[in-house]
Amino acid sequence: MIYLDNAATTWPKPPAVLAAVDNGMRRLGSNPGRGGYEMSLRSSDAIYECRKTAAGLFGAPGPECVVFTQNCTHAINIVLKGMLKPGDHVVVSNLEHNAVMRPLNALKEKGITYSVAKVFPGNDKATVSSFAMAVNVNTRLIVCIHASNVFGTLLPIREIGALAKSRGILFLVDAAQSAGLVPIDMKACGIDFLCMPGHKGLYGPMSSGMLLTPYGEALGTLMEGGTGSSSLAMEQPDYMPERHESGTLNTAAIFGLKAGMDFVKGKGIDRIYQHELGLMSRLYDRLCRMDGVILYTPRPQAGTCVPVLSFNLEGLDSTEAAAILGKRGVALRAGYHCAPAAHQAYGTLETGTVRAAPSAFTQPGEIDAFVKIVGQVMKNQGSTMQNPRGMIK
Amino acid sequence: MIYLDNAATTWPKPPAVLAAVDNGMRRLGSNPGRGGYEMSLRSSDAIYECRKTAAGLFGAPGPECVVFTQNCTHAINIVLKGMLKPGDHVVVSNLEHNAVMRPLNALKEKGITYSVAKVFPGNDKATVSSFAMAVNVNTRLIVCIHASNVFGTLLPIREIGALAKSRGILFLVDAAQSAGLVPIDMKACGIDFLCMPGHKGLYGPMSSGMLLTPYGEALGTLMEGGTGSSSLAMEQPDYMPERHESGTLNTAAIFGLKAGMDFVKGKGIDRIYQHELGLMSRLYDRLCRMDGVILYTPRPQAGTCVPVLSFNLEGLDSTEAAAILGKRGVALRAGYHCAPAAHQAYGTLETGTVRAAPSAFTQPGEIDAFVKIVGQVMKNQGSTMQNPRGMIK
Repeated sequence: MIYLDNAATTWPKPPAVLAAVDNGMRRLGSNPGRGGYEMSLRSSDAIYECRKTAAGLFGAPGPECVVFTQNCTHAINIVLKGMLKPGDHVVVSNLEHNAVMRPLNALKEKGITYSVAKVFPGNDKATVSSFAMAVNVNTRLIVCIHASNVFGTLLPIREIGALAKSRGILFLVDAAQSAGLVPIDMKACGIDFLCMPGHKGLYGPMSSGMLLTPYGEALGTLMEGGTGSSSLAMEQPDYMPERHESGTLNTAAIFGLKAGMDFVKGKGIDRIYQHELGLMSRLYDRLCRMDGVILYTPRPQAGTCVPVLSFNLEGLDSTEAAAILGKRGVALRAGYHCAPAAHQAYGTLETGTVRAAPSAFTQPGEIDAFVKIVGQVMKNQGSTMQNPRGMIK
Repeated sequence: MIYLDNAATTWPKPPAVLAAVDNGMRRLGSNPGRGGYEMSLRSSDAIYECRKTAAGLFGAPGPECVVFTQNCTHAINIVLKGMLKPGDHVVVSNLEHNAVMRPLNALKEKGITYSVAKVFPGNDKATVSSFAMAVNVNTRLIVCIHASNVFGTLLPIREIGALAKSRGILFLVDAAQSAGLVPIDMKACGIDFLCMPGHKGLYGPMSSGMLLTPYGEALGTLMEGGTGSSSLAMEQPDYMPERHESGTLNTAAIFGLKAGMDFVKGKGIDRIYQHELGLMSRLYDRLCRMDGVILYTPRPQAGTCVPVLSFNLEGLDSTEAAAILGKRGVALRAGYHCAPAAHQAYGTLETGTVRAAPSAFTQPGEIDAFVKIVGQVMKNQGSTMQNPRGMIK
């Protein structure tokens, strides 16, 4: 199998991640924060170490600012539901995932409104201007995806963060596709809420999401329950991270996430990025030369995108194309990728796209083999299109 | 280590569970429901098999009635937040966990009220009466813990369910301590919402909780986000289980849960129960004969309790006692176990308790070794209490 569905989840996981999960279940398998005996204390310590690593990696003020969640969607819901009040207004980009758009849509009935700011790929100034123009007197929060999960487009979060700060607006970044691939410093970028999955660019297991925020204590709670602390109180604790962590944590997955973050730090975020960007450029250049392959973005260039490439094959529905490629051993995702807004922006709302994304483990030979398979498929399709340099829509 | 903290999480996990998690990460590691290639389809199939097993084990109408959650607390929050409207009234038992009481307390500000029904251990008729008396014209939901996580007390859920049905009231059961130990048939017991963790009596990994309900489509959503389905819609799907499953699932943990449920089915729920009850009776009988050991419940008897035993050591704070026992290699939990209501009911609100719970893997020799250690501790404490048959408070 040529696995290019790394934007859905990275696979394989580093051996150290598998080992950490296994060790977590075998030797640190007790419930952390609930017992005073050695295994429970060691388990609690290991959880704390993961918080420390995450806080360090993303420039959060401290380990207590790290909330472990089921996934990135959970983290985003905590913030949107916990912070927004009737009358509040939100500005989002036009590339957001349903993880943002569906909660915002649900919040409409509570009198919370939002405006959409257009992203101008390659023109950060215009993008920031469009965010600035969308702000109104009731704007309490700007939400922006750091990198489009469909087209890879990177948003200028540092500049948008500066805009938010200058207007006294809070700033949430959805780093689902960028965490582990692009350095993110919460302080430098003025990020108040940083949401991410653990199982993508951080190489952790599924269900190891995180919310990083210095303002957790001020957020209303999405869920309440046992926290292993202040047990006599009927109210959810007002301190972090327990305020947003009810019930038993996904301990083994968190240990795996720690190992995943260590893997990323060991390899180096920049090196992983360069490796993957090289692969996507290689892929882009080859697809570009093939008849009947439709591309939607400029050639991948450092600083403008994460290594996520959307395409279509002329004459084939995107899901059909991915299914045919899947039968030939290539793992890709097709359709809308839970981000209709991004498709609207890029004109692919009717077709969806096939999406390819590499990981630190992907090799150039796999890209070449994938390209060869695309060529065979197109040949079988009997494409007669004349498009020597690909179609860039 | 003598691990008796199985009411917090069972440990060790069956080898098949560890293998399923590992295999899930190594060979079924793609995102289910998001790709059309083989590994993703196999991953989706495996998730579906887990739903089928759970539905079969608990008498839910079908696999689509099974929602995977982060933990039992998450499942309970989905129901309470998704169902209750201003003006609604809830009846709960006086043995509930903070997973129920804290959300209910938070819902007060939305005009939702609750009354507490007293449980009469050993007198199911009186217990059901007290639930009946607590019902008023606005009662929309009865919530009851199936078995106390502190004292093991089993509640007559079949009779309470019948009461709920007869009054047209919905019924939620928190099966955190009973799932996998006591057979539960949703239909026979009139349960509309069955919430449970996967990592306790079902021997799954942490973060493999479940909500089983035929009414998921009627519940408002706690979170919204990408579901890999109906991607173009800005509204959360109105169909199950996607309605309550946003973002990437905890795939490997779910595969582990499937293996855990298969383990329970293979051993037989009744056999596991008898095994563990035998161990707790053995423990009870020995502790009962020791000076300075305070017990709070009658001798464990089939049908009245799950194998969870709370005690205290005279002259020692419960956390202190557990810490001393922990240093001698016994894993126990002490304090309030996130259930102050239960402590109020049993008169242990000032002291908390030390809690011991076995698993299918616990051996009689471990119980005997534990008792010996308790004896040594009490001797070192120089207890001079005269209490030949233990203190039963």
